[in-house]
Amino acid sequence: MAAYTRFFTYLTLLSVTFSVAYATDPTQLQDFCNPIMAVTADDFFFANGLDKSGDTSNRLGSAVTPVGAAQLPGLNTLGISMARLDFAPYGLIAPHIHPRATEVLTVLEGTIYVGFVTSNQPDNKLFAKVLKKGDVFVFPQGLIHFQLNVGKTPAFAISALSSQNPGVVTVGNAVFGAQPPISIDVLSKAFQLDANVVKLLQSKFSTSA
Amino acid sequence: MAAYTRFFTYLTLLSVTFSVAYATDPTQLQDFCNPIMAVTADDFFFANGLDKSGDTSNRLGSAVTPVGAAQLPGLNTLGISMARLDFAPYGLIAPHIHPRATEVLTVLEGTIYVGFVTSNQPDNKLFAKVLKKGDVFVFPQGLIHFQLNVGKTPAFAISALSSQNPGVVTVGNAVFGAQPPISIDVLSKAFQLDANVVKLLQSKFSTSA
Amino acid sequence: MAAYTRFFTYLTLLSVTFSVAYATDPTQLQDFCNPIMAVTADDFFFANGLDKSGDTSNRLGSAVTPVGAAQLPGLNTLGISMARLDFAPYGLIAPHIHPRATEVLTVLEGTIYVGFVTSNQPDNKLFAKVLKKGDVFVFPQGLIHFQLNVGKTPAFAISALSSQNPGVVTVGNAVFGAQPPISIDVLSKAFQLDANVVKLLQSKFSTSA
Amino acid sequence: MAAYTRFFTYLTLLSVTFSVAYATDPTQLQDFCNPIMAVTADDFFFANGLDKSGDTSNRLGSAVTPVGAAQLPGLNTLGISMARLDFAPYGLIAPHIHPRATEVLTVLEGTIYVGFVTSNQPDNKLFAKVLKKGDVFVFPQGLIHFQLNVGKTPAFAISALSSQNPGVVTVGNAVFGAQPPISIDVLSKAFQLDANVVKLLQSKFSTSA
Amino acid sequence: MAAYTRFFTYLTLLSVTFSVAYATDPTQLQDFCNPIMAVTADDFFFANGLDKSGDTSNRLGSAVTPVGAAQLPGLNTLGISMARLDFAPYGLIAPHIHPRATEVLTVLEGTIYVGFVTSNQPDNKLFAKVLKKGDVFVFPQGLIHFQLNVGKTPAFAISALSSQNPGVVTVGNAVFGAQPPISIDVLSKAFQLDANVVKLLQSKFSTSA
Amino acid sequence: MAAYTRFFTYLTLLSVTFSVAYATDPTQLQDFCNPIMAVTADDFFFANGLDKSGDTSNRLGSAVTPVGAAQLPGLNTLGISMARLDFAPYGLIAPHIHPRATEVLTVLEGTIYVGFVTSNQPDNKLFAKVLKKGDVFVFPQGLIHFQLNVGKTPAFAISALSSQNPGVVTVGNAVFGAQPPISIDVLSKAFQLDANVVKLLQSKFSTSA
Repeated sequence: MAAYTRFFTYLTLLSVTFSVAYATDPTQLQDFCNPIMAVTADDFFFANGLDKSGDTSNRLGSAVTPVGAAQLPGLNTLGISMARLDFAPYGLIAPHIHPRATEVLTVLEGTIYVGFVTSNQPDNKLFAKVLKKGDVFVFPQGLIHFQLNVGKTPAFAISALSSQNPGVVTVGNAVFGAQPPISIDVLSKAFQLDANVVKLLQSKFSTSA
Repeated sequence: MAAYTRFFTYLTLLSVTFSVAYATDPTQLQDFCNPIMAVTADDFFFANGLDKSGDTSNRLGSAVTPVGAAQLPGLNTLGISMARLDFAPYGLIAPHIHPRATEVLTVLEGTIYVGFVTSNQPDNKLFAKVLKKGDVFVFPQGLIHFQLNVGKTPAFAISALSSQNPGVVTVGNAVFGAQPPISIDVLSKAFQLDANVVKLLQSKFSTSA
Repeated sequence: MAAYTRFFTYLTLLSVTFSVAYATDPTQLQDFCNPIMAVTADDFFFANGLDKSGDTSNRLGSAVTPVGAAQLPGLNTLGISMARLDFAPYGLIAPHIHPRATEVLTVLEGTIYVGFVTSNQPDNKLFAKVLKKGDVFVFPQGLIHFQLNVGKTPAFAISALSSQNPGVVTVGNAVFGAQPPISIDVLSKAFQLDANVVKLLQSKFSTSA
Repeated sequence: MAAYTRFFTYLTLLSVTFSVAYATDPTQLQDFCNPIMAVTADDFFFANGLDKSGDTSNRLGSAVTPVGAAQLPGLNTLGISMARLDFAPYGLIAPHIHPRATEVLTVLEGTIYVGFVTSNQPDNKLFAKVLKKGDVFVFPQGLIHFQLNVGKTPAFAISALSSQNPGVVTVGNAVFGAQPPISIDVLSKAFQLDANVVKLLQSKFSTSA
Repeated sequence: MAAYTRFFTYLTLLSVTFSVAYATDPTQLQDFCNPIMAVTADDFFFANGLDKSGDTSNRLGSAVTPVGAAQLPGLNTLGISMARLDFAPYGLIAPHIHPRATEVLTVLEGTIYVGFVTSNQPDNKLFAKVLKKGDVFVFPQGLIHFQLNVGKTPAFAISALSSQNPGVVTVGNAVFGAQPPISIDVLSKAFQLDANVVKLLQSKFSTSA
Repeated sequence: MAAYTRFFTYLTLLSVTFSVAYATDPTQLQDFCNPIMAVTADDFFFANGLDKSGDTSNRLGSAVTPVGAAQLPGLNTLGISMARLDFAPYGLIAPHIHPRATEVLTVLEGTIYVGFVTSNQPDNKLFAKVLKKGDVFVFPQGLIHFQLNVGKTPAFAISALSSQNPGVVTVGNAVFGAQPPISIDVLSKAFQLDANVVKLLQSKFSTSA
C-alpha cells in the first residue's frame, strides 16, 4: 500500500517534472546541463551538418536544418540555437512566426528577398530587403516573416535564434492545414474568401503540409 | 564646442533610452513606476470602460477594448494587461497572434467557439472548444488563435494577457494587407493561390484593414 | 549494489526535480506544456466556474475563486492566472499580499472600495478608489491591498494576476493566525498592543483562519 | 514650431524613460552601468558603513543600514544589495515584507529569534529559529518575516537581498500608519478589532511611523 | 514490451528533468521549494558556519566557505547565496570569475586590496581599492576579480552573490590546470610564454589545483 | 530657480536613464525598438560584412567581426547577436570569456581546434574538439574558451551569441594587460610566476593589447 502510494508520488513527480523540463528557457544554474550522466565534448558538438544542403525537392523549393537542443543536447538551458536555410532557385520559406525567438539571418550564398510585417498597432508595415552574400537581417520575435530566393541559382543562409527551441508556425499550414480543420465559417469570414476556395485550400494544405 | 559635444551626448542618451524605455517588460525595481511626477490613485485606475460594449458594426462584427499600459499608466513595468472582447451575433475575431503574451479568456455573455493551433512540430494541431458563460480558455503565447460568436445574440468576454503591451498580429491583415504589399510571388506560392486571387485579397485587405 | 546506487540516483533526481518542477515561472520552451501525456483542448479549458458566485457566508462576507495552474493545467509555465472575487453586502477581502504577482481587477457588479499601500520609502502612502461597474484598478506586486463592497447589494469582480500561482498572504491571518504562533513579545511590540489583546487576536484568528 | 515639437518629444522621452529607468532589475547589457559619465572604483565602493552600529534608540530598538543602488551606484542593474541590521537588547525588526527580494541573514553578534510565515495555501505556517553568531537564515521573497534580539546585549547581522532595491513593507505601519488612513471599516473587520482600538492604533502608528 | 517502453519513457523523464533541475535560476512559483517532502525551519537554516575561519593553510593562504543551495536547501530557486572569505596574512583569492553572479563583499576584519577588470571594449580597465573593516565593494557578473590581504594579520569578509550557485572559474587553474591540459600551442601563443614555461605552469597547477 | 531645478531634474533623468538604457537585455515590450525615430528596413540590415575576412595580420593571426546592437540597431532589446571569426593559418583566438552570452560556433572553412573549461566545482575539465567545415560547437556563458586554426590554410566561422552585447574578456589581456596594472604580488602568487616574468608579461600585453 505504501509502495502503491509511493508509485503515484513518483508518477506525479515525473509528470509535473516533465511539463517543466521541457518548458523553461531559464537562466543557468550551473555551467551547462546535459541529461546524459557522463558529459563529454560530443554533447556540445553537432557533426558536420551545416555544410550540407537540405533537400529542397518539395513544393516550396526550400529546406530548414535546425540545430537546437533536440539536435545538440549541450544547448539545453542556454537559450540559443542555429539553423541552415536552403533554397532551390526561386525557392521560398513561406510566411511564418517563431513564437519564442528572434532570428538573425546571414546569407552565405545567393540573393534572398526577405521581410517581416509589424503588428496591427499602428499598422501592418512591411520591412523588406533583397540580401546578397554576407548581408545580415533581423526578424523580431513573434512577427510574420518570409525568405525567397530571387536568383536563378541555389541559395543558403545561416540563422541564429534566441531560444533553444524557437518553434515555427507556418501561417498557411496553421490556418488552412490544421487538424482537425478550423471551421470554414471562421476562415471564409477572416480571409474574405468563398467557402469553396477555403475548402480547396484546406484540401491542398492537408496533403502538402 | 563643449556644448556641441554635450548636445550629441544628450541626443544619444535620449535615443538609446527611448529604445529601451519602450522595450522592456522587466521585473520591478520599485513598487511601481509612472512617468508623471506626481502619482495619484487615478494612475492605477481606468474609468468604467469594461462594462461598455465596443462598436461591432464592422465587417467582422467584433471589437476589442484593450486596457494596457497605454490606457492605464499604472500598468507600466508590471507585465500584465486586460481587454474586453465584444461580438455581434456570429461576430468573429479573426485568426491572430500575440507576439508577447499568453491570453486567458473568460466568457461573460454568449456562446463562443475558440481555438488555437500548435506549431509545426510535430503538427499544426487545432485545440478548439465551444465556450459558454463562465468558461475560461487559454491561448499560449505566439500561437494563432481565433474567437467566433456562434450564437444569435451578442457575446462578450474579458481577457487577461501576460504583458503590458501584448501586441496583435492579425494573420490576414499582416499577410494580405501589409503596406507596402508582400510580393505576389511569395503569397501565391505560400498560399497556393492564383496570382489574381492574391491581388484581389490584397485589394480587399488594404481597404478593410 | 549498482541497483542500490541507481536507486539513490533516482531519488536525487526526483527530489531535486520536484523542487524545481514547482518552483519556476519560466519563459516557455515549447508551445505549452502539460503533465498529462495526451493533451486535449480540455487541458486549456476551465468549465463554467467564473459565472457562479463563490460562497460568501463567512465572517468577512467574501469569496475568491482562483483559476491558476492548479485548476487549469494548460496555464502551466505561461505566467498568468485569473480569479473571481465575490462580496456579500459590505463584504471584505482583508488586507493581503500576492508575493509573486501584480493584480488587475475589473468590477463586473456593484461598488467596491479598493486600495493599496506603498512601501516604507518614502512613506506608506494609501492609493484608494471607489470602483463602479466596468472600472479597472491595478495592485502592484508585493504591496498590501484590500477590497470592500461598499454597497447594499452583492458585488463581484474578475482579476488577472501575473503568475500561474500568485500566492496570497492575508496579513491578519499570517500575523495573528500563524501556526505555531509568532511570539507575543514580537506582536505586542510590533503592533503596540497589550499582550492580552494579542492573545485574544491569536485565539480569534486561529479559529477563524 | 519644430523646436516646440522637439520639446514635447524630449519630454515624452524623459518621462517614459524615467518610469523604466527606475523600474527594471534587468540582466546586464554591459559590464556594469553607472549614471556618472566618468566611472571610477569609488562608484563600486561604499565607505566603512557596515562596521558601525545604526542608531537603535527608537521604540523598537532596532536599525537597518541599507547598501543598495541608492547608496552604492555600482550596484545599478546588478540585482543584489546588502544591509546591516542592529538590535538593542530585546530590540525588534517588526514583521515586514520585501516585495522584490529574498533575504539571507547572517548573525555576526548576539542571539536573534527570526521567523517567516508561509502564504495561505495550505496554511500560514511559521518557520522560526533562534540564531546564534555565525548562523544563516533565509526569508523567501514576499513573505512576512521578523527578527528579535532575545539577548541582554546588542546584536547585529548582515543581510544579502536579491534586488538592488528590495523595498520594505512593515506590516503595522502599512496597515495602521498609511496616509491617508485605510478606512476603519476595513481594519476593524479585517483584524477583528473594535473601531476604537483601530483608531488608537492609527494614532500610535501615524506618530511613531 | 509496454514495460520496456515505459522504462524508456521514465529514463527520458529523469534525464530531461535532471538537466533542468540543476539548470534554472528561476523566478519563484511558490513561497519556496525544497526537495525534502516535509519542510522544516532547519531547511532555511545553516548552522554556525560563518563565524568560523576556513582553513587558510594552503599555497594561497585563503579559504572560501560557500553557503549556496547545496549547503542550504532553502535557497533553492531563490537566486541568492553567501560566502565567507578568509585570508591568512598576505593571503590571496586569485583572479577568478563568477559566471552566474555579481558579488558584493563586506570586510569584517583586516585590510583587503580588491579589484576587477572590465571587458575588452573599450579597454581592460582595472578598478581597484584597498578596503578596511566595514567597507563594501561590488564585483560585476562575469568579470575577472581578486582579493588580497595586505595586512600582517588574518582578514575575513562576507560576500553576497546573485545566484544560488554562482560558480567559480579561477583563471590560473582553468587555463593552466585544466584536465586534460589545453594544448601548449594555444597557451604559449595566448600568453606570450615559452613552451617550457607553459609546461612548468601546467605541472604546477595540475598538482596545486 | 524653477528652471534651475528642472535642469537638475533633467540631468537626473538622463543619467539614471543612461545607466539602464545600456544595462538591460530585456524581454520585448513592442515588436522592436530603434533609437532612430523613423525606422526603415535598413535598421534591421547589416550590409555585406560577414562575407569579408577580417584583418588577421596581428600577433595572434585572428580577427573577430561582431554584428551586435552597436553595429545593427535593429538588434536592440532582442537578446541576440552574431560574429564572424577569421583565422590565418595557425591563427588563434586566445582564451576568453563572454560575461553575458553563450556562443554557438559553426565552421564555414578550415579546421579549428576549440575548447572550453568548466568551473572549479567539481574540477576544471577541458571539453575540446577539432572541428571541420559544417561542424557546430557550444561554449556556455561565462566559461573560458578558445579557438585555434590547426590547418595550413585560412579558416573562418560564424558564431551566434545569446546577447545583443555579449562582452569579451580576453584572459591574458585582462590579467596582464589591465590599466593600471594588477599588483605584481597578486599575479606572481596567483600564477606561480617569478615577479620578473610577471613584469615581462605586463610589458608585452600593455603594448600588444
